Amino acid sequence: MILCDIGNTSTKFFIDKNIKNYYKNDKIPKFKDDVFYISVNEKATKKLLRKNPHAKNLANFIDFKTSYIGLGVDRAVACYFEENVVVIDAGSAITVDIIENKKHIGGFIFLGLNSFFKAYENISKKLEISKSDFEKNINLDKIPLQTKDAVFFALLKSIILPIKEICKNKNIIFTGGDGEFLSQFFENSIYKKDLIFENMKRIIDANNSPS
Amino acid sequence: MILCDIGNTSTKFFIDKNIKNYYKNDKIPKFKDDVFYISVNEKATKKLLRKNPHAKNLANFIDFKTSYIGLGVDRAVACYFEENVVVIDAGSAITVDIIENKKHIGGFIFLGLNSFFKAYENISKKLEISKSDFEKNINLDKIPLQTKDAVFFALLKSIILPIKEICKNKNIIFTGGDGEFLSQFFENSIYKKDLIFENMKRIIDANNSPS
Repeated sequence: MILCDIGNTSTKFFIDKNIKNYYKNDKIPKFKDDVFYISVNEKATKKLLRKNPHAKNLANFIDFKTSYIGLGVDRAVACYFEENVVVIDAGSAITVDIIENKKHIGGFIFLGLNSFFKAYENISKKLEISKSDFEKNINLDKIPLQTKDAVFFALLKSIILPIKEICKNKNIIFTGGDGEFLSQFFENSIYKKDLIFENMKRIIDANNSPS
Repeated sequence: MILCDIGNTSTKFFIDKNIKNYYKNDKIPKFKDDVFYISVNEKATKKLLRKNPHAKNLANFIDFKTSYIGLGVDRAVACYFEENVVVIDAGSAITVDIIENKKHIGGFIFLGLNSFFKAYENISKKLEISKSDFEKNINLDKIPLQTKDAVFFALLKSIILPIKEICKNKNIIFTGGDGEFLSQFFENSIYKKDLIFENMKRIIDANNSPS
């Protein structure tokens, strides 16, 4: 069985516990195995289905109650089994979802780290950030005294403070490409790299492996 | 006398108390009057000087003490006469500068509102924001229950909370195109539309109208 998470930037396959990423211009392979997918990207879904018409949309097996209008299915899957927690998926966008007493009570959406970097660079070359530099040289305790730090500081505080305000004493589960990096700034957090695929698997199992 | 503030996105002239904006592809006029300029944009500076070789760089008359490396001259001018205040210029970028006991002690740099909007749109059409909708439909008291509000909420909290954290009890002076809009979220703030031009004028006057 192959699991597939179609996002805004890439289509991720989970094959034998390994993740493979396909971007916009990559060719999607033809799979013989069963494929279950979730998607927030119509165009990339069509691309998957052209090669794999047998692929099944897991959204049809998901019953996730929320008053939130238009919640991405990836967010529903990430939150599916939680009771009292904040779930943060740090990918192209950083989605924050709050679960209270098994109920999804809402959420919000930051730019993803790469979007921040690109947007700063588009304003001025002077605001260009190297991601590795950013990840290594964070100092949130001092008021910045150079442009590079001024951007690092604003960017990180922009993400950290709204999360802290909403979280209060809740635990946080991070997932997504930048989830591990961001989790270091929250004591009450864990990082689950494969949260979405693990939950997809659990949802399929709970539905008696529909096929 | 004509004042000119050359920024990342546009070149602004202050002529008889009116502001005129020139963008990348606009032709810069030839002026007969004295022109004093400040600039953070080399290319646009050359464009000004080609038509107005007599224009004088006000940076040469500015003595602004700070330990901040590479502070944009526009930020120095905006802070020039302050003693205990936070100065926020909300333009292409949103710069925040902290003045304590007449000393500039540092600052940080957010994306400007338009940069945020564009960056969200670049992630997904679903995250596209209309600026007028954004400015009219803010609700920071409720956890968002639809995508549009989820973006509005994260974007505004991203800017407001870091400023509140740094400001404590200081007053805030907003300037720049989005300064008036942002100032509504801070009780202890005022908006000075022409802060930079007013300060340029004061610096010129203090230097006995060098010519």
